[in-house]
Amino acid sequence: MALINDNFIKIPATYLFSEIAKRVAAHKQDNPEAEIIRMGIGDVSLPLPDASVDALIKAAEEQRHAATFRGYGPEQGYAFLRDAIVLNDFVSRGINISEDEIFVSDGAKSDTGNIGDIFGVNNRVAITDPSYPVYVDTNAMAGRAGEPNEKNEWSNLVYLPCNEANNFVPQLPKEKVDIIYLCYPNNPTGTTLTKEQLAVWVNYAKETKAIILFDAAYEAFITEENVPHSIYEIEGAKEVAIEFRSFSKTAGFTGTRCGYTVVPKDLMGYTATGEKVMINKLWNRRHTTKFNGTSYVVQRAAEATFSPEGKNQVKALIEYYTENARIIREGLQKGGFEVFGGVNAPYVWAKAPENMGSWDYFDYLLKEKNIVTTPGAGFGASGEGFVRFSAFGSREDTIKAMKRLEE
Amino acid sequence: MALINDNFIKIPATYLFSEIAKRVAAHKQDNPEAEIIRMGIGDVSLPLPDASVDALIKAAEEQRHAATFRGYGPEQGYAFLRDAIVLNDFVSRGINISEDEIFVSDGAKSDTGNIGDIFGVNNRVAITDPSYPVYVDTNAMAGRAGEPNEKNEWSNLVYLPCNEANNFVPQLPKEKVDIIYLCYPNNPTGTTLTKEQLAVWVNYAKETKAIILFDAAYEAFITEENVPHSIYEIEGAKEVAIEFRSFSKTAGFTGTRCGYTVVPKDLMGYTATGEKVMINKLWNRRHTTKFNGTSYVVQRAAEATFSPEGKNQVKALIEYYTENARIIREGLQKGGFEVFGGVNAPYVWAKAPENMGSWDYFDYLLKEKNIVTTPGAGFGASGEGFVRFSAFGSREDTIKAMKRLEE
Repeated sequence: MALINDNFIKIPATYLFSEIAKRVAAHKQDNPEAEIIRMGIGDVSLPLPDASVDALIKAAEEQRHAATFRGYGPEQGYAFLRDAIVLNDFVSRGINISEDEIFVSDGAKSDTGNIGDIFGVNNRVAITDPSYPVYVDTNAMAGRAGEPNEKNEWSNLVYLPCNEANNFVPQLPKEKVDIIYLCYPNNPTGTTLTKEQLAVWVNYAKETKAIILFDAAYEAFITEENVPHSIYEIEGAKEVAIEFRSFSKTAGFTGTRCGYTVVPKDLMGYTATGEKVMINKLWNRRHTTKFNGTSYVVQRAAEATFSPEGKNQVKALIEYYTENARIIREGLQKGGFEVFGGVNAPYVWAKAPENMGSWDYFDYLLKEKNIVTTPGAGFGASGEGFVRFSAFGSREDTIKAMKRLEE
Repeated sequence: MALINDNFIKIPATYLFSEIAKRVAAHKQDNPEAEIIRMGIGDVSLPLPDASVDALIKAAEEQRHAATFRGYGPEQGYAFLRDAIVLNDFVSRGINISEDEIFVSDGAKSDTGNIGDIFGVNNRVAITDPSYPVYVDTNAMAGRAGEPNEKNEWSNLVYLPCNEANNFVPQLPKEKVDIIYLCYPNNPTGTTLTKEQLAVWVNYAKETKAIILFDAAYEAFITEENVPHSIYEIEGAKEVAIEFRSFSKTAGFTGTRCGYTVVPKDLMGYTATGEKVMINKLWNRRHTTKFNGTSYVVQRAAEATFSPEGKNQVKALIEYYTENARIIREGLQKGGFEVFGGVNAPYVWAKAPENMGSWDYFDYLLKEKNIVTTPGAGFGASGEGFVRFSAFGSREDTIKAMKRLEE
């Protein structure tokens, strides 16, 4: 008799974005004429940079001819892309990362989910609250989360609340934890940590032999000084942290699919009997056994984001969304809202007025303003009372939405 | 203290293909002039079909403009591709599979590895021997395999020997098993099961509530009648089987990356307390939580293999490799070898002469003939004494290799 992984049936059936989609569809059915502006899901609206499209086409033409055709590539990614990543994302910031510490993948969602494969089920996992739902759900699937309560808080996870009271800076946990998810610039709050604030976590991990899973998918949106683009800007981080990067938000790759994970060779984990094991080797084993490399043409498109033209085009994309974020932030502030984030991130975290709940406010914005946001409660209990506005829409829609809110 | 998944350190460090690569590199260093013919790893040599390249380019151009740009797609794959799959791979054979039973992915290697996520650790797993190493390794990582012995046989796996004695038809296991990996046409032996032989397994699974993981990556190479292209050609199989398909070998997608998995809604698994659970729902949850869809441009390239031109081009690719397989099979037979497979599959399974071991014969072919094969022992204990010849090389190389063997 084939037994299922019983952890799966503990996970609440509705996933945040499908619930949103359901409510939007119902509203649309009731109001077929409504001009709905989508500021919910974090998908981009601007197309792929020309440099990436040109590279895709060039690579596709190579695939047409036996002499230039590429079959299986290295599972970890082609050297042309790994080298470009090392040079542009790390060496340029004075960080010493080598090619064999870079693992190219089909995106950060896969990697942040799959990374759990190499860790034991008995680790105590800390997750900032609110957070990207994938961290919680994949730990629940693996049996590290325990049991959920009615608010979808899991008994074995350690939640690190990020709220107005602590200015969205997670405090060190009182109980010992082994694995810590940090995402900065943060999804969903759009807030950041300074180098000093992040160093507190690096030092904690060093002292306790914990590992930080650092999601830096939004690093390209950083505009302020003293906000680290990579956790490896912090002294000693290579001994305690894995970093996840993505081309999705940086260069419009949400539908093209490319990301990468940095696993430094200095990073060690421990067996049940306390022996040190190089995490890089474990991830290499996982990656080469359960993955067969990112599409060659896509890797060429990703490489092109590092060319001179590609860099300029990516810069223009980021500036466009950053300006949207400013419009949202200032529009909401003008409307009397309390807002956070949106300076170094494409997300603005807005407090619902009059102590409304997240989903109530979501429904109000949908029904009264025809604006789709993401209810903060969907990202964790500490997100209750907030909604997330995404700056990834068009300029026109962004301005229109803010006008509707002013009315 | 971050604990690793201790199962990882049980797995022998060298993976089959990296060991081969090492030996080939050493031979090349010793003999820089040697003209080495690679008939080892199963990578294709012919380029992508024109129809797929054209579709890739068209889709890339769509990604250049906001009006036609596609960001996040459905994690399960776009309807255009799922519909084409249903129609061409199933309806055309009289099999009733619906769109929501198809999950498009970046390839069968990922899926056959990741499928384990949804199953409990206490299932008894049966694996044909020899087999694709990913089945064994991913079960070892998940803790379902137990402990390995010096021959890399795992204590908790049930091996189903496929050898000359049983004409490469696996016999039902004596002990009860819960999950059964079957790959037909088989990698590495190139042998097949008839419908009647496969029905034995479907009936066994029905009686014991076991689940069959059916890897059909090589179905396009079937030339004979009465060899099932899909397990769902067998009555009742939708209640007991998951099927894995790939565009890699069919249409040269080894470096482009696309595959799909069929999870029928009739298929049930069981909780520890014996409750029935729909496996389709579990895989949907896994797929939407830990994967973000296959690249849009790649899905268009895969769709194009089903167009009239695409079908003709794919047919030509398959015929080319099938002819190579014939040349290898007949060449080896003429050389006095005992060979299996190669009729409905791109692999020929050749018995080493004079009771030589697999690696010894591999080394002989490499050093004396400059031909790279794959040692059968790398696929499991029952592969000892065999080597696998791949038909995926060029015609010229294939003919040349057979001439060298005749000398």
